[in-house]
Amino acid sequence: MTDPRYTSLVATLPSTVPFVGPETQERARGKAFEARLGANENIFGPSPKAIAAFRDAVDGIWMYGDPENHDLRHALADFHGVGVANIMVGEGIDGLLGYLTRMLIEPGDTVVTSAGAYPTFNFHVAGYGGRVEAIPYREDHEDLTALIARAKDRDAKLIYFANPDNPMGTWHSGDSIAAQLDDIPDGCLLILDEAYVELAPEGTAANYQIEHPKVIRMRTFSKAYGLAGARVGYAMGAKGLIQSFDKIRNHFGMNRASQAAALAALQDQEWLAGTVAKVASARRHIADIAKSHGMTSLPSATNFVAIDTGRDGAYAKSLVTALADQGVFIRMPFVAPQNRCIRISCGPEDKLALFEKALARVL
Amino acid sequence: MTDPRYTSLVATLPSTVPFVGPETQERARGKAFEARLGANENIFGPSPKAIAAFRDAVDGIWMYGDPENHDLRHALADFHGVGVANIMVGEGIDGLLGYLTRMLIEPGDTVVTSAGAYPTFNFHVAGYGGRVEAIPYREDHEDLTALIARAKDRDAKLIYFANPDNPMGTWHSGDSIAAQLDDIPDGCLLILDEAYVELAPEGTAANYQIEHPKVIRMRTFSKAYGLAGARVGYAMGAKGLIQSFDKIRNHFGMNRASQAAALAALQDQEWLAGTVAKVASARRHIADIAKSHGMTSLPSATNFVAIDTGRDGAYAKSLVTALADQGVFIRMPFVAPQNRCIRISCGPEDKLALFEKALARVL
Repeated sequence: MTDPRYTSLVATLPSTVPFVGPETQERARGKAFEARLGANENIFGPSPKAIAAFRDAVDGIWMYGDPENHDLRHALADFHGVGVANIMVGEGIDGLLGYLTRMLIEPGDTVVTSAGAYPTFNFHVAGYGGRVEAIPYREDHEDLTALIARAKDRDAKLIYFANPDNPMGTWHSGDSIAAQLDDIPDGCLLILDEAYVELAPEGTAANYQIEHPKVIRMRTFSKAYGLAGARVGYAMGAKGLIQSFDKIRNHFGMNRASQAAALAALQDQEWLAGTVAKVASARRHIADIAKSHGMTSLPSATNFVAIDTGRDGAYAKSLVTALADQGVFIRMPFVAPQNRCIRISCGPEDKLALFEKALARVL
Repeated sequence: MTDPRYTSLVATLPSTVPFVGPETQERARGKAFEARLGANENIFGPSPKAIAAFRDAVDGIWMYGDPENHDLRHALADFHGVGVANIMVGEGIDGLLGYLTRMLIEPGDTVVTSAGAYPTFNFHVAGYGGRVEAIPYREDHEDLTALIARAKDRDAKLIYFANPDNPMGTWHSGDSIAAQLDDIPDGCLLILDEAYVELAPEGTAANYQIEHPKVIRMRTFSKAYGLAGARVGYAMGAKGLIQSFDKIRNHFGMNRASQAAALAALQDQEWLAGTVAKVASARRHIADIAKSHGMTSLPSATNFVAIDTGRDGAYAKSLVTALADQGVFIRMPFVAPQNRCIRISCGPEDKLALFEKALARVL
């Protein structure tokens, strides 16, 4: 008896995973982390109104969610001043990146990204047989000019560009991005991943016509809105592109309670403003901790801070491991020279105090 | 400026959707249905322990869910007496069917299913360029012998077979299925969709070695467990096949609260037994309603009943439409001769009373 016949592509894929979750590490060490500061989650949590909406929705959890995500999409359209047809809601940006890659990439196609940028995007590209061209960061910033130039050179179908960036936390002005959109070659689409943009300085979000055929923008409720576990992201772009998701997406894939929670979170912009202030304060605290140990930290437009250890990737890795042993979960960039840094998620004072104490012990 | 370059496959796909949701109909009619009896949801709802677990989990909803679904998979492995490596958890059976299709089907490959069976599977197959061969029902039952014969004839990679069946509610004994597994041709995999099996008579679930290379079985928390809106399904099969999901799945796609709710639901088998009894009683009630109007109903092993209108698809459709106008949402099979029936989900007495009243008015 033979095994199932996998596609030639799937047969060649490795069973690797984009990230190992903190729970896996906790099971290995036999106890929970005391401070979970590694996954860029928002430890300040979601709006109490989002929590209430999530709880209330459980009464209807016997029902499938609305496959059109009607209410959330309408609220998002109003909020952003775009048409409902310009918005697609999905199972986090991860889910939407998967759908988008499937729509555009077939074996042999090229995408361009930054070396050490979001690995889940690379996972999706590999999963559809695409080739990844990776451009180095320029002074710890993603380099849009170089990404576009390489896309031209290699006839790429997709460019992935996060602003603000993960894992470094750096950012570009929205104006500088908008000014480059027309340089994107024909037949190439820019994925503008703005997962952290609500936490960035005014002017970081790029301003351009929503029907621009060269760009799709990704947003999420997982970061500033504090709903990572609810899996709600959205894409904004030209109607034709957005409508194409309907050809392939898991129409009944959205959690009903998550739809309600995201809507309530969006409607509580006052809570969001409070989160932005708390995150800014936590960024300063993390920078101070770094400084007190003679390390510098990178300016951040996100809910995490990259601390420059001043040494190499092996050293940074030893810190990540030693901190985990102390009960503090953090992560670090994958690729040199960014991997000289460790990456700390923002959180309340008590969690940062645990990090501070553990770091002092480790150093 | 040109549009993005879609894959040749995606460019040819229609923007159709597998199902229109009841919410879409409610928006069109300007008010909610009074009885939602069309989507095979479990109106009796989930275990109070599952509800409590879901509510409690909201405190941790700022965290991503465990990408390994460790706790739920271990509980399922214990429950079914199989290895943890034999179980994959995913975003409902819909999500798992999508992953599985992606793993096996590329343009030109053939799958075999029953004419009028689950359309979301056909949607996934079309989405990966597969060809669907549809076998007629035999006396309102899916016909595994004919499915296997066609798979042999057309060198199919996949057979889709639901037991119990949707939309007719009919079933085969597990023994009759197990006896046919070795007839499945080499290089072909049987998807045994047991979404409703907890509601079926003893002996409906097929018994076979979990490492059997010709079959993968799908289960869900959406039906008997009453958690449709939480999106949790699971697949059980040979380790190699199950592990292959890791090559392509959305590793962080699971809702954290849903993971907890599914675990609690599984652990409350007493509630499940109560649901099974309530559903059996509701099936009898629906059959009585049918009988009182001179219609027969099909014996059902699911949480819905197909009522034979004794006329044709156009007539059944007119009933579905007229009942919707009366505030009662039901559905019907898509394909003749099954489309002579209307399909009513089980529910509490008050909802069935609304159906009864509306049906009397309509007829």
